[in-house]
Amino acid sequence: MVPNSSGEAIGVFEAGGRSRRVLDLIANRWAVLVIYALSEGTKRHNRLQREVEGISQKMLTKTLRSLERDGLIRREVYPVVPPKVGYSLTPLGESLIGILTELCKWAEEHIEEVEAARADYDAR
Amino acid sequence: MVPNSSGEAIGVFEAGGRSRRVLDLIANRWAVLVIYALSEGTKRHNRLQREVEGISQKMLTKTLRSLERDGLIRREVYPVVPPKVGYSLTPLGESLIGILTELCKWAEEHIEEVEAARADYDAR
Repeated sequence: MVPNSSGEAIGVFEAGGRSRRVLDLIANRWAVLVIYALSEGTKRHNRLQREVEGISQKMLTKTLRSLERDGLIRREVYPVVPPKVGYSLTPLGESLIGILTELCKWAEEHIEEVEAARADYDAR
Repeated sequence: MVPNSSGEAIGVFEAGGRSRRVLDLIANRWAVLVIYALSEGTKRHNRLQREVEGISQKMLTKTLRSLERDGLIRREVYPVVPPKVGYSLTPLGESLIGILTELCKWAEEHIEEVEAARADYDAR
């Protein structure tokens, strides 16, 4: 929440803050699921699309490009005919796994409480 | 990633899975920032809007309602004239704080690496 040495806002709460822009990236359903899927190792586009259910080919391409641009995943082209492309996490991307695993675990553990709260709210 | 006892898919990867729907809620920029802001204690609408920079009044109202419906926050009306309303985390919402704090900390710590990767990617 404090300006850094160059006076730029760095807190997540600042609208123009730089870390808000990073948070925007990871507080994103598809980005979380793709990173989580890649925690098991290198995967190709087709396999990711199969594993992350409901993601369209276009959205997967967009998510992969954005994660690559942000240095979280790397795209590797294998010199075979026809060329094959694989995606894997960079060390920066790997540093997120612990947090995202916790997030997914929380979602799986607390779903019943959330569903109960929703039913309760809707009945009011 | 396995069906529960009633055979319903519960993994985060399943498109119709129940925990995917929970993940949708928390893998959301505004929800993360509002929960994080409420980790300091009960706050009113105006204060939240001031603290979570860039959120519109309408989006804040929508986010608060959704978080309340999901049992993550509670809305309290104080019997004063004019009535005052405060929002605070429920125990379920509090159980998310550790993870979200880690997520925001990661964003603040790794922003420079991400910005460097972006500049590198854009220069290619």
